[in-house]
Amino acid sequence: MKLRLGLPKGSLEESTFQLFKQAGFNISTSSRSYYPAVNDPELEILLMRAQEIPRYVHEGVLDAGISGLDWITENNADVVEVAELLYSKRTSNPVRLVIAVAESSDIKDVSDLNGKRVATELVNVTEKYLKEHGVTASVEFSWGATEVKVPKLVDAIADLTETGSSLVANKLRIIATVLESTTKLHANRTAWEDPWKREKLQSIAVLLQGALLARTKVGLKMNVPEDALDKILSILPAMKQPSISRLVGSEWVAIEVIVDEVQVRDMIPALKSGGAQDIIEYPLSKVIP
Amino acid sequence: MKLRLGLPKGSLEESTFQLFKQAGFNISTSSRSYYPAVNDPELEILLMRAQEIPRYVHEGVLDAGISGLDWITENNADVVEVAELLYSKRTSNPVRLVIAVAESSDIKDVSDLNGKRVATELVNVTEKYLKEHGVTASVEFSWGATEVKVPKLVDAIADLTETGSSLVANKLRIIATVLESTTKLHANRTAWEDPWKREKLQSIAVLLQGALLARTKVGLKMNVPEDALDKILSILPAMKQPSISRLVGSEWVAIEVIVDEVQVRDMIPALKSGGAQDIIEYPLSKVIP
Amino acid sequence: MKLRLGLPKGSLEESTFQLFKQAGFNISTSSRSYYPAVNDPELEILLMRAQEIPRYVHEGVLDAGISGLDWITENNADVVEVAELLYSKRTSNPVRLVIAVAESSDIKDVSDLNGKRVATELVNVTEKYLKEHGVTASVEFSWGATEVKVPKLVDAIADLTETGSSLVANKLRIIATVLESTTKLHANRTAWEDPWKREKLQSIAVLLQGALLARTKVGLKMNVPEDALDKILSILPAMKQPSISRLVGSEWVAIEVIVDEVQVRDMIPALKSGGAQDIIEYPLSKVIP
Amino acid sequence: MKLRLGLPKGSLEESTFQLFKQAGFNISTSSRSYYPAVNDPELEILLMRAQEIPRYVHEGVLDAGISGLDWITENNADVVEVAELLYSKRTSNPVRLVIAVAESSDIKDVSDLNGKRVATELVNVTEKYLKEHGVTASVEFSWGATEVKVPKLVDAIADLTETGSSLVANKLRIIATVLESTTKLHANRTAWEDPWKREKLQSIAVLLQGALLARTKVGLKMNVPEDALDKILSILPAMKQPSISRLVGSEWVAIEVIVDEVQVRDMIPALKSGGAQDIIEYPLSKVIP
Amino acid sequence: MKLRLGLPKGSLEESTFQLFKQAGFNISTSSRSYYPAVNDPELEILLMRAQEIPRYVHEGVLDAGISGLDWITENNADVVEVAELLYSKRTSNPVRLVIAVAESSDIKDVSDLNGKRVATELVNVTEKYLKEHGVTASVEFSWGATEVKVPKLVDAIADLTETGSSLVANKLRIIATVLESTTKLHANRTAWEDPWKREKLQSIAVLLQGALLARTKVGLKMNVPEDALDKILSILPAMKQPSISRLVGSEWVAIEVIVDEVQVRDMIPALKSGGAQDIIEYPLSKVIP
Amino acid sequence: MKLRLGLPKGSLEESTFQLFKQAGFNISTSSRSYYPAVNDPELEILLMRAQEIPRYVHEGVLDAGISGLDWITENNADVVEVAELLYSKRTSNPVRLVIAVAESSDIKDVSDLNGKRVATELVNVTEKYLKEHGVTASVEFSWGATEVKVPKLVDAIADLTETGSSLVANKLRIIATVLESTTKLHANRTAWEDPWKREKLQSIAVLLQGALLARTKVGLKMNVPEDALDKILSILPAMKQPSISRLVGSEWVAIEVIVDEVQVRDMIPALKSGGAQDIIEYPLSKVIP
Repeated sequence: MKLRLGLPKGSLEESTFQLFKQAGFNISTSSRSYYPAVNDPELEILLMRAQEIPRYVHEGVLDAGISGLDWITENNADVVEVAELLYSKRTSNPVRLVIAVAESSDIKDVSDLNGKRVATELVNVTEKYLKEHGVTASVEFSWGATEVKVPKLVDAIADLTETGSSLVANKLRIIATVLESTTKLHANRTAWEDPWKREKLQSIAVLLQGALLARTKVGLKMNVPEDALDKILSILPAMKQPSISRLVGSEWVAIEVIVDEVQVRDMIPALKSGGAQDIIEYPLSKVIP
Repeated sequence: MKLRLGLPKGSLEESTFQLFKQAGFNISTSSRSYYPAVNDPELEILLMRAQEIPRYVHEGVLDAGISGLDWITENNADVVEVAELLYSKRTSNPVRLVIAVAESSDIKDVSDLNGKRVATELVNVTEKYLKEHGVTASVEFSWGATEVKVPKLVDAIADLTETGSSLVANKLRIIATVLESTTKLHANRTAWEDPWKREKLQSIAVLLQGALLARTKVGLKMNVPEDALDKILSILPAMKQPSISRLVGSEWVAIEVIVDEVQVRDMIPALKSGGAQDIIEYPLSKVIP
Repeated sequence: MKLRLGLPKGSLEESTFQLFKQAGFNISTSSRSYYPAVNDPELEILLMRAQEIPRYVHEGVLDAGISGLDWITENNADVVEVAELLYSKRTSNPVRLVIAVAESSDIKDVSDLNGKRVATELVNVTEKYLKEHGVTASVEFSWGATEVKVPKLVDAIADLTETGSSLVANKLRIIATVLESTTKLHANRTAWEDPWKREKLQSIAVLLQGALLARTKVGLKMNVPEDALDKILSILPAMKQPSISRLVGSEWVAIEVIVDEVQVRDMIPALKSGGAQDIIEYPLSKVIP
Repeated sequence: MKLRLGLPKGSLEESTFQLFKQAGFNISTSSRSYYPAVNDPELEILLMRAQEIPRYVHEGVLDAGISGLDWITENNADVVEVAELLYSKRTSNPVRLVIAVAESSDIKDVSDLNGKRVATELVNVTEKYLKEHGVTASVEFSWGATEVKVPKLVDAIADLTETGSSLVANKLRIIATVLESTTKLHANRTAWEDPWKREKLQSIAVLLQGALLARTKVGLKMNVPEDALDKILSILPAMKQPSISRLVGSEWVAIEVIVDEVQVRDMIPALKSGGAQDIIEYPLSKVIP
Repeated sequence: MKLRLGLPKGSLEESTFQLFKQAGFNISTSSRSYYPAVNDPELEILLMRAQEIPRYVHEGVLDAGISGLDWITENNADVVEVAELLYSKRTSNPVRLVIAVAESSDIKDVSDLNGKRVATELVNVTEKYLKEHGVTASVEFSWGATEVKVPKLVDAIADLTETGSSLVANKLRIIATVLESTTKLHANRTAWEDPWKREKLQSIAVLLQGALLARTKVGLKMNVPEDALDKILSILPAMKQPSISRLVGSEWVAIEVIVDEVQVRDMIPALKSGGAQDIIEYPLSKVIP
Repeated sequence: MKLRLGLPKGSLEESTFQLFKQAGFNISTSSRSYYPAVNDPELEILLMRAQEIPRYVHEGVLDAGISGLDWITENNADVVEVAELLYSKRTSNPVRLVIAVAESSDIKDVSDLNGKRVATELVNVTEKYLKEHGVTASVEFSWGATEVKVPKLVDAIADLTETGSSLVANKLRIIATVLESTTKLHANRTAWEDPWKREKLQSIAVLLQGALLARTKVGLKMNVPEDALDKILSILPAMKQPSISRLVGSEWVAIEVIVDEVQVRDMIPALKSGGAQDIIEYPLSKVIP
């Protein structure tokens, strides 16, 4: 039994491989770059452009794949969402497909696009959006550098953006958001009905999400005198019970807890002034709650 | 008056700039990379993907552009061919759009493609070709790495190739040639009717072709005693009259001639043994016959 | 409330960002490279040359900054030292400002510099030092490559060096040390009087120092039979009490201790022969004693 | 007392330095690249080609070195094997010295090599092997690019390969395996008789192997209700007793165990469904069983 | 006899070496990078920062150097200008030292700078300019990245710019031009009085300027029937007499002329339609009028 | 008929290809890197290490090759020297094989090497040299970085050097020169007896040498009034008659001459003051005297 899994080639490739490695799957591309080896005999990995993965998952050429909601929608792919995976090179924000025009353009909102020319990589999504808003415009496929086409070549573009900064740099103004998109592990419907494949996919999802969660968490350990225990516990996050173990032959206890990395900044000074000693922070590879 | 000219971004970009520089136009991309500066106030250069240029020329957004016959055809662009420009990074062969299958495939010729799946960047050209050959197949747009999709993802591909070596390396077998394509300077039909634009385009064509011709030619000069003149002239190419000038105060003449670089290898030993002396070869920047 | 913090651009930039990341502050330079984003709304980061930071801290344009004692002194900056931060690319040695001459020079000590020409990036520090030693010399600002100026352009240089190897390679001889310098988190005097800013700075200092300390420490765990406990404890560093916890349903205890990484080399063979089993070493991100 | 240790320059250099760093020895090559500094005053490191190290160890110029069995054998080096170290850039497979011919060659096995020409970097090993198989062939030293010499320059090659993929890419067929080789820490026989050097070498071996073992292991911690303890223990590997400690004031115990990273994929879903909570995985730097 | 010549290290270094090579001086930096070898035993080349060269020329440590008028002025260097050399990486425009403020600043002209803070690399030039305009401002030395300091760190900057595009990108507005600067070959006054050094410098100047002039010129040759000679001559530039030589045994003459490269674009179509044949353009290395 | 020619892979590869290109042979390595294509159907090019080429030429596997006298000698290759080719990356000096010891060594000349250990890449040449000098030493093959082996690993080295600067940088002292070596086009003795191959090789030699000669020569043209002709001719090199042609309808003559580039520096000022005008220098691709 093998699960055929499509992973994105290109800008997400490196971070996808790192995520899988952290989850326990070593993917190595040495021999043939589009069909990499992986240290799990139950997996067959295929690298391809993120734009194409949902189509091949939909058609069953792949059992499952990783791509964005944007391309799932553009391909009209009827697939099962197994897990949302929040990882990217720069931010944890979803990517947005926005319609943008030149800063100085007369076009103020979507209705002004009637009769205009719009360039985009996602022609289907854009046409559907415009139709839903009662707009008739010419939507043309853009082979690249979409953001520099306004206003010399087209009147507007529908472009993917994470922070909007590239649009600002090109003196563009956003007039509408067509879609918000995050990365999805998604499966073919027939493959999902196969018990072995579904269990394999769910197991992969747990490991990937455990790896992603671990990136935002750290382990904290500290020694605390018993009489300061209540105070220290009140500083730690309430939700989860910390592990407390008594130290042999002493009036001290050791406390260990998993916390959000971003909270540590504020917590450590408070813990120290509350009487904790020998506070250490250590990194985690996976966290499964 | 300005002529709006689209030049290809990407793999041909550097060699296109070098050709224009040799022809007398310095294009510099320092300020904004898609709208470079050029030292000719009558020109406005726009860089874009070669795939898109014919469409924008056809529609009149550009007056003229440089792209391949492949993309002119794929875009159904009704444009005027001003000049054929034979330059590329590796060979002077035309690029071919070929249909290829796995070496071990049962598919032997185009008729075997009935009911199969074909991936290609040139969907329109491929569909038209298959229809003309009475074949019904599913032609899907490929976002890249087309040559590794056979046989795992599709049955055949229609892919551009210069030497075929990448196809061989991926263990593919060519079963048909859909199209041969060379690079074209092509113009919008309306722009071509404008006398100023037509003259400007013809002037650019003369300079570009003069630059390309100079890449295959060299200048040869030599001194020859008068009595060896006939013999030497019989070695030189017959087509063009060489320039012969008498040297002051001597029995020698100087001969100067423009020849194909590739002929020089065989010509120089013959000239030397024929009595020519002080043979020099010098490089040329433009040759206009 | 915002704390305005100047960080060094250039050779220390990457290692400074890594240190802040380990301390819990993600600095990203994607949008505008001199005013990077940071995941702490209470911080505003400005990147600038280390040479300038103390001046701007002194004048109050910045609340605090990170730079060396060398440049604090050169700028005559009257600032508060919040923390010493020992990090650099190669060694943990302080950097020294030394006066060097050609190996073959007659100049033997500082007093021989009378009437000579000295090139340096730190003109003020060098002039003050020479004056204190009763030497009158011409000290000129060097724009770079100071170490190659001797003896063709100047008689001596005052140059920063970590290991002295670049001076040796240029056949220079050190005759005096003007200054030893380490990296300092330093604050403007007025900002330091502001309770919020002082607390924020102290908190940053704790986290940065906790991160730096963790780089020299590791966590060790091992299982020990109860009757070997005393022997094992005698091998571990005496200063800190290790955490000892009894394993459920066994005659073994688990020992956990934080030690200097450099001691582990010698400790592990001793622990093993002392009866410890399952010794593991794990990395730490922060250590706050 | 100093131990003089030869480490391989070139393709293994970076991974060797990383391994030593993880084992506690920081090697820095800043000053002179072939005699790097190391943070252990008892060590003197010399970098040289792996091919030469066994010769210098054999002759006593080095006390010990790291190189492959292949080059130990080629050099006829009579040395002590201190430890096998399984690390390399791509796989953990041993490297093999294989004899290969062109795919289309008539040569089917070693006996067909009589009177043929064989190119190899390991002339001695290859000649000895052929002689043992009763074959008389001309074995010549190859300065590089051995795999492209068949069939134009020689009839066969004896070449080192890890996966065989480079041989396949050059259309070669393997007809015999001469040698399997792994990386060895090996010592000069006289040095090994010196008690201080032997102890130092054994200590280095323990640390290097502890570092290598840690690369395949991870730490797992989880909280388990007491009544689920037996079930959870049955999922964990049987060989080693996990550390179990009771949590203060609760019916839960904390379990900590070191497991193979490759097992974690299967273990985590089982642990979770068995009742374990707050499962975390953390990385290890050294594991000494 | 040796002439000691300072050449700029850094951004101008490569183009300076290319210019000297074209002028006949091969400078190679292989042995020691600041004191390169040159194939002229009468020259000693020293590389240093352009900012320092005029100071060392002024003081006589160098006989001559190449630097900009900006740094000659900043150093108050009393030197002899031997030649102006118009070469740079991007344009042939002079570089300008401009005062710039934030686009949104209230500062409109120089008089508004009273009491403000100005950062610049050229402190002396800027202070002198402000004083001449009756302005009292604090001018501080900037160690780099001057253009990002407005408005957070200073009110205005005095910065060097070739095209102004970097200022625009940083949202700055130019309010005054302090200085226009071109590159100068300049000499120490005493060295200039030495006949040998003066002649050597003048010879270098002729060769460098001959090389620079050749960059804007090309050679044109063509064959012309005698009866078209007048027409063709009327198309060629009037200033210089072209070389006309009669071809042996024919009614044709060969014309050869040196013209501005930028004129060739327009000239070639006219020459061709005027009856010229076999027009060739060839490159030049030096042009001395 | 094909000539099988071995060209050096590695440090000379790029400059060899450039030389062949200038000589009229375009070698392109795109398809398979060790058997490149060439635009001459009579040539088959094989790339290999320079060390091996003479051996394969000697044995007749190659008809001819390009390598140094050093490796011809080391291989005891009995070959025909067709042409000496003086080209290299840095200087036109021959490379020398020198014996070097540590600066501080007691070894003063070759006779002191008795009983010492010498590392070298050219074992045969070195052993023969030492034997001729009556010295018995252990000569061992060095796999690389030979110059850093003294004095830790060996007593002396025999190393190739162009300028000696790398030896100086490693604090070595040259005690003897074993061999001077230049690059040779050399042929197999049997191939040389074949008339077609010999003629082909001689033709290649003429073209390569014509290309090399052109690198040291330039073309000069100038216009001279008839009455200054004698003076100008006296400045030009006496050996070769310059081409003098009368300009139509004027009292001027045009002079054209090929001169050494290195002479131009001194000639141009003299020509100008002698009355020559419109002096131009142009580059040459081949010069066959």
